[in-house]
Amino acid sequence: MGYTIAVVGATGAVGTQMIKMLEESTLPIDKIRYLSSHRSAGKVLSFKGQEVTVEVTSQDTFAGVDITLFSAGGATSAKFAPYAVQAGAVVVDNTSYFRQHPDVPLVVPEVNAYAMENHKGIIACPNCSTIQMMVALEPIRQKWGLDRIIVSTYQAVSGAGQSAINETKNQLRQVLNDGINPKEVTAEILPSGGDKKHYPVAFNALPQIDLFTDNDYTYEEMKMTMETKKIMADDNISVSATCVRIPVLSAHSESIYIETKEVAPITAVKAAIAAFPGAVLEDDTSQQLYPQAINAVGSRDTFVGRIRKDLDQENGIHMWVVSDNLLKGAAWNSVQIAETLHEKGLVRATSELKFEFI
Amino acid sequence: MGYTIAVVGATGAVGTQMIKMLEESTLPIDKIRYLSSHRSAGKVLSFKGQEVTVEVTSQDTFAGVDITLFSAGGATSAKFAPYAVQAGAVVVDNTSYFRQHPDVPLVVPEVNAYAMENHKGIIACPNCSTIQMMVALEPIRQKWGLDRIIVSTYQAVSGAGQSAINETKNQLRQVLNDGINPKEVTAEILPSGGDKKHYPVAFNALPQIDLFTDNDYTYEEMKMTMETKKIMADDNISVSATCVRIPVLSAHSESIYIETKEVAPITAVKAAIAAFPGAVLEDDTSQQLYPQAINAVGSRDTFVGRIRKDLDQENGIHMWVVSDNLLKGAAWNSVQIAETLHEKGLVRATSELKFEFI
Repeated sequence: MGYTIAVVGATGAVGTQMIKMLEESTLPIDKIRYLSSHRSAGKVLSFKGQEVTVEVTSQDTFAGVDITLFSAGGATSAKFAPYAVQAGAVVVDNTSYFRQHPDVPLVVPEVNAYAMENHKGIIACPNCSTIQMMVALEPIRQKWGLDRIIVSTYQAVSGAGQSAINETKNQLRQVLNDGINPKEVTAEILPSGGDKKHYPVAFNALPQIDLFTDNDYTYEEMKMTMETKKIMADDNISVSATCVRIPVLSAHSESIYIETKEVAPITAVKAAIAAFPGAVLEDDTSQQLYPQAINAVGSRDTFVGRIRKDLDQENGIHMWVVSDNLLKGAAWNSVQIAETLHEKGLVRATSELKFEFI
Repeated sequence: MGYTIAVVGATGAVGTQMIKMLEESTLPIDKIRYLSSHRSAGKVLSFKGQEVTVEVTSQDTFAGVDITLFSAGGATSAKFAPYAVQAGAVVVDNTSYFRQHPDVPLVVPEVNAYAMENHKGIIACPNCSTIQMMVALEPIRQKWGLDRIIVSTYQAVSGAGQSAINETKNQLRQVLNDGINPKEVTAEILPSGGDKKHYPVAFNALPQIDLFTDNDYTYEEMKMTMETKKIMADDNISVSATCVRIPVLSAHSESIYIETKEVAPITAVKAAIAAFPGAVLEDDTSQQLYPQAINAVGSRDTFVGRIRKDLDQENGIHMWVVSDNLLKGAAWNSVQIAETLHEKGLVRATSELKFEFI
C-alpha cells in the first residue's frame, strides 16, 4: 500500500532535515532507505525510532523504490537520477543539475504544482533563495502582475552545508575566545567550496555565493533569475539579484523590490500574502513586528514583512522575506513535492526516459 | 598660529576614532579639549602622547575654541552647538539634528565641499550609510547623471555605539560557549536603544535601524533618501532604502542599484570610480576580488566592486559598496570637513547666528 522512499545524501545538512520532514509527513511510507557516498555508508541513522543503515548509492540501488529524494550535489544527481528513473522511481532532485532541463518541472507546490502533471520522472526543487521569493511574490503576481524584481539576499551559511556551519562557529570562537583578528581566522570553505580563494564570513558579509559566471553575476544570482522565469512561466519578468552570505547559521533573509503591472494597494498586498498558503504576514511597524531569521528557523513557512510603497515609483513595492533555507528552501519543499505527487496520483514509473546516462 | 579643537563625546565609539583621526591630521592644532557628559568627565585620555582630562560640556565651555566636533547624540548637539557657534567656534556636527536645517551645509568633502563656502557656523556630517553611498555614486552622477537609487544595507553594530558592540559579542558568546538558543540571548539595545522592543542581532539580520516613521520606513532609511537629495543638490533623485543590521562589528556594506540618466558603459564606470578621491575600485570576479567589511576596517576609503549591468534595464547598474562606518562614515568625514574648512580659510566666527537656543 505505502511507498518505498530513498534519500540520497541522507547524512548531509539538507538530508538530515529531509528525514525529519518525512517522519512528520502524511505520505504512506512502507520502507525508507538512506543512501550516500562510500564515506558515509555504514552509518546508522533512525526513522521514526527504527534504525536504518546508510547504503552506498549505486546504479543498481533503486529497484523497488517509488520516490527518490536527491540532495548530494549536482554530480551525484547527474550520475544516478537517470538510473532511479529507469528503475521506476520518481526523482525529486534538490540540486541545480536538472532545473533548466526542458523535461523537468521546477516546482514550488504553492505556486506551480500544475507543472508536475506531465513529469517524465524527475521533478526539480528550486534553489533556496528562489523558493522563498516565489512564495512571497506569487500572491502579488496573481492579482497585479509582475514586471521586475531586484533582490539583495542575506543568506545563512547552512546553505553551504554542515562544514560551513562548523567553519563559521570556529571563526567566531577564534575571534571571541582567542582574540584572533577577523581577517586572520581559518577559512577553507566559504564563499564557495569549488572556488580558488576562501574568505572569513564571521563579522563579514561576502558578496559571492557559488562561482562567478561570464556576465559577472554568480551562479546563485543567475539561478534566482532563471528559476523565477521558469517557475512563474514568464520569460518577461526581469530579475536581477545580489546574493550575499552573512554570519547567520540558518534562515535566509531577502530585501526584495518589485514593480507590478498594475498599481497594487499595500493593504490589499498584505491581505493577499496573509491568505496565501505557506506565507505568513509579519508586518506591524508600530509593534516592531517583522520577519527575523532566528524566529524562522524550524518553520516550514515563509515570513513576509516591511511591505511598503517605493517612495517614488507608483507600482514599486519593497519587502523583507525570511524562511528557513534548509526547510522550505530545500528539505520541506522536496518532501512537499513528494506529497503533492502522491495527492495528484503522479507517483508512477514513466515510459519516456529522456535523461542522459553519464 | 594653530587651532583649539574641542571634541564633544570624546569617550564614545565615534569620539575615540575622532581623536585618532585628529592625531593623524595635518591640521595645525595648538590645543585639544575633550568634552563629555557628567558620567565620563574626569577620565584621562591621551592626544599624541599627552594626557587630556575630559571636561563636562556646558554652555560656557566653548570660549577660545576654533573648531568643535560633536558626536554625543542629537540632543547634546541641539543643546550646545548654538553656544559653541556663539562663542566663535565652527561646529562640525556628526548627529542628525541639524542635517536638514536650511542654513547647515551637509557635506561629504569629495562630493560637495563647495556647500561650506557660506556656512553660518554649523556644518553637518551625513549619516554613515549615506556617506559611503555618495562617494561611490558621485563619480557616476557627474558623468552620466543619476535618476534613482535602490539600496539595501548590511550595517555593522558599531553604528549603535560601544554598548551595541559589547552586546553583540556577549550574545555570540552566549550561543557559542553557553549553548543558549539564539532567540534567548540577552538583548537590551538593538535594533534601536530608543524603541520599546529589543531583539538579538547575533546569527540574525534585523530590518530596523533607528525608529519607524509614519510612512513605514525607518528614520535611518529616510536619512538616506533626504540626505542624498541635499548632498547631491537634486530633489529629483529617487532614493528608497532598506536598512538592515547584521552581526558585523565594524564597516557597513551596501547593495546598491542605480539608474543613470544616460547609459553608462561599465568599463567607464569602473574607471570613473577608480579615479575618484576616497573611492577604491575592488572589482575582479576572476580573482574573487570584491569589497569586504573585514578588510575595510581601519581605512578611510570607500571600496566599490561587483559593478555590473542590470540584466534587463539598459541604464541600470548594480554594485557593492563597503566602508568603515566609524571612519569615513563618521570620525574621518568629520575631521576631513575640519581639514577642508582650514584649507578653504573657512575656520572663522560667524556673525549671523541663526540657531535656536534650547
